[in-house]
Amino acid sequence: MSSEELELIYRRYLATLNEHRTHDLSEFVQDRLTYNGQEWSRQEYEGLLTEDVKTFPDLAYPIGLLVVQGPHVACRIDFDCTPVREWLGFQPNGKRISFSEHVFYEFHQGRIQHVWSLLDHQAISRQMTS
Amino acid sequence: MSSEELELIYRRYLATLNEHRTHDLSEFVQDRLTYNGQEWSRQEYEGLLTEDVKTFPDLAYPIGLLVVQGPHVACRIDFDCTPVREWLGFQPNGKRISFSEHVFYEFHQGRIQHVWSLLDHQAISRQMTS
Repeated sequence: MSSEELELIYRRYLATLNEHRTHDLSEFVQDRLTYNGQEWSRQEYEGLLTEDVKTFPDLAYPIGLLVVQGPHVACRIDFDCTPVREWLGFQPNGKRISFSEHVFYEFHQGRIQHVWSLLDHQAISRQMTS
Repeated sequence: MSSEELELIYRRYLATLNEHRTHDLSEFVQDRLTYNGQEWSRQEYEGLLTEDVKTFPDLAYPIGLLVVQGPHVACRIDFDCTPVREWLGFQPNGKRISFSEHVFYEFHQGRIQHVWSLLDHQAISRQMTS
């Protein structure tokens, strides 16, 4: 698969997440995957993303930077959203917060096989404790 | 510049850092750059990298994942090194620590113009307070 095709798949995956359709990602995600080195089922991965929408009802995935070189995708996602419940041990304070995720994916046959994600915890902590 | 050429430049840049030659990076870095959105001179950037070597005398930059699509480079760097002085507010405990950086670069005319870096602060905190 070309990098151009992989980019189109990834953009469709994010469009699906932007519509909060987190319950059937089988088009985009393998049955089994690893998330930060841990073995997960797709259902567990969908569960994480579904919980994120419950935490942030206004959740969207705006691309800040996108780098594609098959089979890998790297994306900086610039979140700007409002938590309505406890998250990462912090209580919501009614304020919108802005933070980035730097996430790498490895695709296999057009579907996500591995995910490595880092969030900007310092930015999150700073905004949720102010 | 092709992605293949850009990858070679980036690998030479990391080789230079692996040799701790942080004092003259003009071959790889623009005179002015941004680092996580802040405007820096190359000297300030070299200063950051020089301080890192003082903190971690055994510092190396092993590539975990590398994704190149000109003008961008995305890299997961899997550090495994031993702090010998205070870092990020933590005191060294004599132990080697392992953590990742997810870093994006934008190159201009073969030299780094923008850097967006996230460290795995949770892994660092967990290991330096145990």
